[in-house]
Amino acid sequence: MRARDLVADYPVVTLETPILDAARLMAEQDLPGLIVQGDETFTILSGTEALRLAVPRYIADDPALARVVDEAHADTFMEALGGRTVREALPRDRRELPVTDPDATVLEMSALMARTRTPLVAIVEDGRLLGAVTLERLLDRMLGT
Amino acid sequence: MRARDLVADYPVVTLETPILDAARLMAEQDLPGLIVQGDETFTILSGTEALRLAVPRYIADDPALARVVDEAHADTFMEALGGRTVREALPRDRRELPVTDPDATVLEMSALMARTRTPLVAIVEDGRLLGAVTLERLLDRMLGT
Repeated sequence: MRARDLVADYPVVTLETPILDAARLMAEQDLPGLIVQGDETFTILSGTEALRLAVPRYIADDPALARVVDEAHADTFMEALGGRTVREALPRDRRELPVTDPDATVLEMSALMARTRTPLVAIVEDGRLLGAVTLERLLDRMLGT
Repeated sequence: MRARDLVADYPVVTLETPILDAARLMAEQDLPGLIVQGDETFTILSGTEALRLAVPRYIADDPALARVVDEAHADTFMEALGGRTVREALPRDRRELPVTDPDATVLEMSALMARTRTPLVAIVEDGRLLGAVTLERLLDRMLGT
């Protein structure tokens, strides 16, 4: 079984998509991440990466502050996301993209998800996006659930 | 809004649960991870962590091998998981556990998920497990989807 046998259509956003729209898409469709059409290649934005932007820098730097910030100001969460884009949420120092080709084996996709800690991989052939394989789909097929 | 307002029941496994059972539970219920009852505390096993064990060490060490391994031997995937436990799948060098208490704020949980790259956190009060807050639930409540 190869990526081409498991790949399925999957929502795609761009680098300029507002992060709030991306988060809504993930929440509404219960997705573990989104495919991102980048400048030169595709990549994945995971849910936890999107969340990073929701935490104002001054709070991320001082976790104790996240406890004392009055939750009446839960708006802080939304304010932090307002106007930010998917581009800003993507990690800058990513060494390996969760992207592979349709000939990738199940073991290869498993290793890629494990190494990148991303529960889905984009499947790209000659620069053309075919879709994604999710961890859920991979497990379903391997375990026969 | 605090963790106590968002926490919900969530499947729990132990350190000795076979990783195949844990993977099946995740696949069947479409869960991003599981709560693990540890020796002294609770923690989280994420889907991508469970997957690490599915990749035989000799393949993880040499990604090119994952491509050439004949997929007629997809059994390799299952064999690698057979007899292994949740304990073996948990990262040993984890610096911070995705665990917090019921007073944790939305910002605090967001920062914790982002730092640990785990899409759910266990909520524990005085050593007693209350349940989990998932990234999906957090986004749902914050975005009103």
